Amino acid sequence: MAEPEYTAEGELLRPRGYQAWTFAGGPVGLDYSDRKPAEGPGVFHTVYLQPEAYRHYARTGKFPEKTMLVLELREPGEREVIVKQGWFAGKLVGVAAAVKDHGRFPNEGWAYFDFGEAGGKASALAPARCHRCHSEHGADDNVFVQFYPALRELKNAAAAPSPSSPPDPSAYSK
Amino acid sequence: MAEPEYTAEGELLRPRGYQAWTFAGGPVGLDYSDRKPAEGPGVFHTVYLQPEAYRHYARTGKFPEKTMLVLELREPGEREVIVKQGWFAGKLVGVAAAVKDHGRFPNEGWAYFDFGEAGGKASALAPARCHRCHSEHGADDNVFVQFYPALRELKNAAAAPSPSSPPDPSAYSK
Repeated sequence: MAEPEYTAEGELLRPRGYQAWTFAGGPVGLDYSDRKPAEGPGVFHTVYLQPEAYRHYARTGKFPEKTMLVLELREPGEREVIVKQGWFAGKLVGVAAAVKDHGRFPNEGWAYFDFGEAGGKASALAPARCHRCHSEHGADDNVFVQFYPALRELKNAAAAPSPSSPPDPSAYSK
Repeated sequence: MAEPEYTAEGELLRPRGYQAWTFAGGPVGLDYSDRKPAEGPGVFHTVYLQPEAYRHYARTGKFPEKTMLVLELREPGEREVIVKQGWFAGKLVGVAAAVKDHGRFPNEGWAYFDFGEAGGKASALAPARCHRCHSEHGADDNVFVQFYPALRELKNAAAAPSPSSPPDPSAYSK
């Protein structure tokens, strides 16, 4: 499993190759303000985690130590040519990460990092509101599992397997 | 690599475990009509392909035979609790697949299947407009690579590597 790497100063190095990791979910247009985006649905969020962390979660319902959830932020691009309306994830505008590492972050076990568009390393974010919101509202272990179909349905599928529950936990548990 | 499986009648079996495959992209609100959705950004699309097909594409720029692109369709759910606005992928409303298989579909090499919400198998779609649009507008080999960041940036990254190009093709080419 790709593990978080830190500088001597404790900054997290920007994870590499995460686009080949497992997709957790992709909300759009999240905003702390009431301001409507000038055009389109707002920013595309794409969240990935290591395949091994995903399989561990499928098997145990727990995120293993060294889990990294990487968040990409992209401006919306309009899919105007083919269909009458719709939007896709366009230009990259930011990358962030949540890391589970109790050895390094003993209080909560998780820390949050903002690389911006092109930063190669990032310090753990200070704002208490980030930690508080993840802690209070993340459905499972500080993670917003409720918004990530691939994760939340692993639990649903285990509880009530049916043809409309596409994930097959047994396929991940090897 | 998970390969397409067909019934004796030539129907494709609904792929299993694809949520653990590689994420290609997730447009929202695509529609052939001008009708605006009653609420929210419209339907969330999530497109996955086999990890092996992704790595093959990263290495060669070609989709291998037996590539499957699985499309999930989900109603938008509103993320009202935490932030002021924003949407996430909610209830599953449909699954479709594009399959590259020249042995079985010698004319174009690709066929398209619609499983609906819970169907376990599907016949190749007849409408010529599906084939025509994929053929005319898919940026690469009938695939809408232009709308899938993880695929289109593999080519960009190979052409001009930089810190703002997160995918690292060398990491996929083993």
